[in-house]
Amino acid sequence: MEYHNFKELVSSVKAGNRRTVVVAAAQEVHTLKAVLKARQEGAVECILVGKKQEIMRITGELDYQIEERVIVEAKEDTEAAYKAVEMIRNGQGDFLMKGRIETGTFLKQVVNKETGIGAGGTMCHMALMEIPAYPKLLGLTDSGMVISPTLEQKADIIKAGVDMLRNMGIENPKVACLTAVEKCNPNMPETKESVLLKERAIAGEFGRCCVEGPISCDLTFSEEAARAKNYHSAVTGDADLLLVPNMVTGNVLGKALIAMAGAKMAGCILGAKVPVVLTSRGSSLEEKYNSLMLCARGIA
Amino acid sequence: MEYHNFKELVSSVKAGNRRTVVVAAAQEVHTLKAVLKARQEGAVECILVGKKQEIMRITGELDYQIEERVIVEAKEDTEAAYKAVEMIRNGQGDFLMKGRIETGTFLKQVVNKETGIGAGGTMCHMALMEIPAYPKLLGLTDSGMVISPTLEQKADIIKAGVDMLRNMGIENPKVACLTAVEKCNPNMPETKESVLLKERAIAGEFGRCCVEGPISCDLTFSEEAARAKNYHSAVTGDADLLLVPNMVTGNVLGKALIAMAGAKMAGCILGAKVPVVLTSRGSSLEEKYNSLMLCARGIA
Repeated sequence: MEYHNFKELVSSVKAGNRRTVVVAAAQEVHTLKAVLKARQEGAVECILVGKKQEIMRITGELDYQIEERVIVEAKEDTEAAYKAVEMIRNGQGDFLMKGRIETGTFLKQVVNKETGIGAGGTMCHMALMEIPAYPKLLGLTDSGMVISPTLEQKADIIKAGVDMLRNMGIENPKVACLTAVEKCNPNMPETKESVLLKERAIAGEFGRCCVEGPISCDLTFSEEAARAKNYHSAVTGDADLLLVPNMVTGNVLGKALIAMAGAKMAGCILGAKVPVVLTSRGSSLEEKYNSLMLCARGIA
Repeated sequence: MEYHNFKELVSSVKAGNRRTVVVAAAQEVHTLKAVLKARQEGAVECILVGKKQEIMRITGELDYQIEERVIVEAKEDTEAAYKAVEMIRNGQGDFLMKGRIETGTFLKQVVNKETGIGAGGTMCHMALMEIPAYPKLLGLTDSGMVISPTLEQKADIIKAGVDMLRNMGIENPKVACLTAVEKCNPNMPETKESVLLKERAIAGEFGRCCVEGPISCDLTFSEEAARAKNYHSAVTGDADLLLVPNMVTGNVLGKALIAMAGAKMAGCILGAKVPVVLTSRGSSLEEKYNSLMLCARGIA
């Protein structure tokens, strides 16, 4: 299956098993708006961990009658993160969302070796983009967490990304390892790395998927451009996921697509046992909502 | 002044002094098409260095009556590049264009310490983008030559870019040093470098211009987004030039804007005494033509 846009993703979430999101430090109006909208629509169930009184006050202001049973009191941020993570570990919730809490404080509990829900690999960010000029939703990783990933980290990032996409029902995710050129160049280590990643994909290391590289952005986006350069790959014009060579490339690409190509995005943190909704403070309600839907759909 | 699109750039070239382009190894149909179109329109004069017979044959096939006096015979590629560069050095031409010759062979003559036209600094590529969603032509550098520029190379790249833009009539070019974040981060050397480049710009090292950074792509493209993040700069929403931290970032950005945002581009090589037209073999006639116009307009 594939998703042409976020609307289809949302429909798919609503058609599936209802998942429970556990929100750490839920006392934040935009986070609550997104969660409660999804809940009202029957798309997710929620557990709100955090400052109970504040949560009650905000939900009241939003004219939403919240049941006290879905609120778990946690006065301090670390406590909220700890408790939220614990509930995931205990199977009381399906996935995690960051509320009004520092990212570092939150993630520290997520990856805690004894009480956390780390999966042993690299934590990374995957953006999912809806781009008007592209026929389907397109993943972009890692544009927000690992600044200069090593080859092994890139392998982890691909693995996490294709696992997520397969969970979403995309059976054979197509991954483009973006570079500036199509030939290996010793001065561009990402070119050689992409060859190695492709080999590891063929050897089965990442499960069912198709990894291509080195490949530049024009060939990735257009089968026609690829044909003109005599570059033949299943990925051209049909990629599900872009692996960028470093974080700044992904960051610039994602933001430029939003500003200049009318794209919308959802985001999630991968690499823990469950997907994590972690949007920035400035994210719109729509982005938070779509991110919630992405994670709900990406549960194993 | 500013250019809203390539059409305005072309008009500006036609309104100014007619410049002479010297083409090295001109025996290439797409190169000749672009040059002869510009010549027919009265936008440029040309000198065609290369294999005379082949040049005559191709121009004949294009139904163009070329005068023999504008052709300079050069049987070998190195000879063609040498002669073309020599004509620039002697003031017989205003700027240079690469024809059917390997880029390395061509540039070797350009930067030759004794017979070349290098200017002592770093050679770099500047793309000029026409993006439908952006109000004016936008430069992007270096997305094609220096893979991982050092701080000094970045200073050279900014200097070359703003010199070019000022030559084009943009009196106070606004430069955004793109990064993933707005704060200095020791793990992202480009953030600190952008602060240093901004300081050097303020100290006058690059002539009249406004350099900003660290700044992310969203704030660069939108004054509104910048205001929402309490980031105040003349550059937000109004940049003339983007400096990317490394080549792959610029390459991916430029190609994505073309594929997904309907952008068109022109390109030039900067850092020699004159701008150099150097488009790739796969470039469209339109790109070659616009690149020619860009360089014609960028003569000091």
